[in-house]
Amino acid sequence: MKRTKIKALLATEPTGQTVLAQGWVRTFRNNQFIALNDGSTINNIQAVVTLNSLDDTILKRITTGACLSITGELIPSPAKGQSVELKVTALEILGDSDAEKFPLQPKKHSLEFLREIAHLRSRTNTFGAVMRMRHAMAFAVHQFFHERGFFYIHTPIVTGSDAEGAGAMFRVTTLDANKPPRDEQGNVNFKEDFFGRETNLTVSGQLEGETYALALGDIYTFGPTFRAENSNTTRHLAEFWMIEPEMAFFDLQDNMQLAEEFLQYLVRYALQHCADDLEFLHKRAQEEEATKPQEQRSELGLLDRLRFVADNDFQRLSYTEAIDILKNSNPNKKKKFQYLVEEWGVDLQSEHERFLVEKHFKKPVILYNYPKDIKAFYMRQNEDGKTVAAMDVLFPGIGEIIGGSQREERYERLLNRIHEMHLPEKDLWWYLDLRKFGSAPHAGFGLGFERLMLFVTGMTNIRDVIAYPRYPGNAEF
Amino acid sequence: MKRTKIKALLATEPTGQTVLAQGWVRTFRNNQFIALNDGSTINNIQAVVTLNSLDDTILKRITTGACLSITGELIPSPAKGQSVELKVTALEILGDSDAEKFPLQPKKHSLEFLREIAHLRSRTNTFGAVMRMRHAMAFAVHQFFHERGFFYIHTPIVTGSDAEGAGAMFRVTTLDANKPPRDEQGNVNFKEDFFGRETNLTVSGQLEGETYALALGDIYTFGPTFRAENSNTTRHLAEFWMIEPEMAFFDLQDNMQLAEEFLQYLVRYALQHCADDLEFLHKRAQEEEATKPQEQRSELGLLDRLRFVADNDFQRLSYTEAIDILKNSNPNKKKKFQYLVEEWGVDLQSEHERFLVEKHFKKPVILYNYPKDIKAFYMRQNEDGKTVAAMDVLFPGIGEIIGGSQREERYERLLNRIHEMHLPEKDLWWYLDLRKFGSAPHAGFGLGFERLMLFVTGMTNIRDVIAYPRYPGNAEF
Repeated sequence: MKRTKIKALLATEPTGQTVLAQGWVRTFRNNQFIALNDGSTINNIQAVVTLNSLDDTILKRITTGACLSITGELIPSPAKGQSVELKVTALEILGDSDAEKFPLQPKKHSLEFLREIAHLRSRTNTFGAVMRMRHAMAFAVHQFFHERGFFYIHTPIVTGSDAEGAGAMFRVTTLDANKPPRDEQGNVNFKEDFFGRETNLTVSGQLEGETYALALGDIYTFGPTFRAENSNTTRHLAEFWMIEPEMAFFDLQDNMQLAEEFLQYLVRYALQHCADDLEFLHKRAQEEEATKPQEQRSELGLLDRLRFVADNDFQRLSYTEAIDILKNSNPNKKKKFQYLVEEWGVDLQSEHERFLVEKHFKKPVILYNYPKDIKAFYMRQNEDGKTVAAMDVLFPGIGEIIGGSQREERYERLLNRIHEMHLPEKDLWWYLDLRKFGSAPHAGFGLGFERLMLFVTGMTNIRDVIAYPRYPGNAEF
Repeated sequence: MKRTKIKALLATEPTGQTVLAQGWVRTFRNNQFIALNDGSTINNIQAVVTLNSLDDTILKRITTGACLSITGELIPSPAKGQSVELKVTALEILGDSDAEKFPLQPKKHSLEFLREIAHLRSRTNTFGAVMRMRHAMAFAVHQFFHERGFFYIHTPIVTGSDAEGAGAMFRVTTLDANKPPRDEQGNVNFKEDFFGRETNLTVSGQLEGETYALALGDIYTFGPTFRAENSNTTRHLAEFWMIEPEMAFFDLQDNMQLAEEFLQYLVRYALQHCADDLEFLHKRAQEEEATKPQEQRSELGLLDRLRFVADNDFQRLSYTEAIDILKNSNPNKKKKFQYLVEEWGVDLQSEHERFLVEKHFKKPVILYNYPKDIKAFYMRQNEDGKTVAAMDVLFPGIGEIIGGSQREERYERLLNRIHEMHLPEKDLWWYLDLRKFGSAPHAGFGLGFERLMLFVTGMTNIRDVIAYPRYPGNAEF
C-alpha cells in the first residue's frame, strides 16, 4: 500500500477507508492519541490507538520524534479542530527516538538553540512553515517570470571579475594553502591556480545577466551570491540567494512598474497558497511582539502587512523629494535621527527609510534618481549631471528589499564613469562590448530572497529563513 | 507605445495594425529587408523598408548586430516561410554595430571561437535556442516537483564538510594569500579564516537534503555544485548545476520509478514547448553528424532520440545481470572493449554503459544493486552483504545521466561503513543523528543539469550548454 500524505488525508472525505500514513510523532497522549506530522502540512493527523490493542513494548517506543508507519481507517473526528482522524489498525515503528536524548522536546525552544541543531529544526512547526513558504516563494518567482516570457539564466558562481565592487569577496582556490607557488617577487602565483588566475565567489550576476538581456530580451537570475563582510547582524548572511531580472528596452519607469508587480505577485501568492503556514506564523509573530515594549511593537500583524502590500500601490518619489520630506520631518528637527539629514547628496540610513515607509507614507516606497556619487558605475546618468536612474524599493520592517536601475547603455558615458571611479577597464572589456555592438536601453533590479522571506514569514533574524545559514564563524553542516 | 515581442507578433493575425518591434539585425538585404530578432524566439520578423523612405546615413547604420526600434504595420507576408511581416513606418537606431568590428558575422562560426566571445554568442541561433531550452528545462524541473508536493531546498554552497567524498574541492577563504596566519606548527591557521575553519565549495547537496526529507517528506535541490578536477573533457565542468530530489519512505523501486517519470516528463516538456528551437537544433545536429565518418554517426536524429525516451519504458536490470550480458557480449569476446569485463565487482566504463544502452537494449537502462565497494558509504546495504541499493540511469550518447540510491537508514550499519571507509565520523554527527532520531527509509538521486541539456539539445560539448563555462584555466567573464 502507498502512503498518502497527511495534507491529502486531511482534505479527504472520511468513509472508513483504509489508508497508510507515515510520519513523525509530535505528541502521544494517554497511550492513545498520536499527533503525527509528515511535513506535507503544518497540521498533524490524529491517529487513535484502541486501548490495549498494542504491546506495551511498542507503546513505549511511540515517543516524540519517532517515525511511524500507520495503517488505519479514515473516519470523521469527534475532536475539535480536525475533521478526520485515523483509527489505527496496524502500527510499525520505522525509527525510534530516545525521548531522553532527542533534542526537540515538545516545548518551545529558542531560535538560537534551534540554529545549533539546524539539521533537526526543520521538524518544528516554525521551521516547517518557513521552509514550505520558502519553496512557495521560489516557485512563485519562477512562475512570475515564466508567464511573462523571461528566460532563467544561471550566471557563474566562480568569477574572475570584481567588476561590480559590491562588497568583500571570498577567494576560490586549489593552491596548497601552506606552500603556494610563488612568482619571482615572492607573491602567490595565481597563474598556477585552477583557473589560471585569482578567482572569487560572485557578489552579483547582474553584469553577466545583462549580456543575456541584450540577446534574449527579458532574463532573470536566481542563484547564490556571497559577501565576505564581517557582519554579525540579523540582516546579513555571507551566502544568500538573489533574484536579478534584466530587461532590454526597459527604462526606469518600466523597471519600477515590474518591481512593484513582482512583489505584489509574490505576496498575493503567499496569501493564496500558504494560508495554514501563514496563520501559524502570524500567531507566532504576535506572541513574539507581545514580549516587546509597547513602543517597539508593529502596528500591523503579519497577515495585515501582507494584505497591505498586496492591495496598495507603492509610493514613488525622487530622492530629492525624499530629502525635502526628511529635512522637514519631526525626528530631523527634533534631532531624534541618529544621522541628521542636512544636505542633498547624503546616503539614506535605515532610520530614514523606515521613517518614510512606516511613518510618513505608511506604505511601500520606491525612491528613484539618486545622486550618482553614492551609486554604482553602471547606472544610467541623468541629464541633470548629478543623478542616476537608480531605484530602491523600501518595505516596512525590512528597509531596502529591491535595488535596481536603468543601466548606462552609452559607451562613452560608461567608459568615463569607469575611469572616474578607477575601475579596472580591462576586466570589463566584455561589458563594454555590449555598448559597442547593438547597445539598447535596458534596466534591471535585484531582490534578496532572504529579505523577501523575512517579510513574508514575519521572522526577524535572516539566519532563520535559510536552511543552513553562513555567517562569520559558522559553516556547520 | 509598448513593444510587442517578436514571438507574439509572429503569432498575431495581421490586419495592418501598427506595432512596435525592437531587436537586433540579423541580416539586411537589398537596402530593404531587415531580419530582426529579439531573442523571444529563434524566428526573425522581416521588416520591409519602403525604397527611398530612409536617409542613406540611416540605411548605412542598419548593419548586422545593430539594435533597432521599428514601428510598422503588421501585414500578411508574400514571402515564403513567414505569415506576417512588418511594413516599416518609422525606424530608430538604438545601438550601432560596426560591421567591420562586430565579431558575429552572418556566417557559421566555430563553437570554439564562440566560447571566446561567450558574452555575444547568446545572439546566435544556436545559443539562443540552447539557452531558451535551458530555461524551459529548468522551469519543467520546478513544475514537476511542485506538482508532486516536493519542497525546493537551497542547500549550502560553502561547506565545512567533505563528507560525500565525491571529488576534489575548491577551498573558500578570506585569508591573506601571501601571508596567511600560521599556527604553532607553522601551518595555515584556518581558525582565523572567515568561517573559523577550512571551508570548501559543495560537491553535492544530498546529505543536507536528507535532513530536510526527514522533516518535510519530499524535497529537491537545484543549485550549483563544484569539482576541482583537472578534467579537460567535453563531459566535465568545474561548476555545474545539479538537481537532487530526496524522498522519505521511498525504497529503491520507488526511486527508479520517480527517476524514469522525471526524465520522461522533462523530455516531453521539451518536445511540447520548444518545437521551434528543437527543429533548429535537430537540423544543426544533423549537419554536424554528416561531417563525421559513417561509423560514428548516431542512428537516430535528435528529435527521434527525444521521442524514443518519451515513449519507451526504461530497461531495468541488476548490475549482476549486466555483468553477465557484458561478459558474453561480442565486443568482450572479441576484445574490442578497452576494459574487458572479466569478473563481478568491476566498475563499469562508459564503453560498457553505451554498449548496454545503444547496442544491446537500444533504450535507456537503469542498473541497480551495485557492488558496495565501488559505491558511496551512505548507500543502503543489501542483505547479500555484497551489494548496495544503488541505481544509475544510462542514456544513449550520454552514459550516466542520473545516479542515486536508497540511503542506509540503520544507524549501526551506517556507522560501520563510515569506519570501514575511514570517513571522518565527527564531521558526520548531524548526518548520523538522522538515524538516531526517527530514522526512516528514504532514497534520492542526482541529475546533472548540463548532462540533461546535452541530451535535449544534441550539443556535444558541455561547455556549450551553460552560459559561462568554468573549466581548468578558464573563469573569464
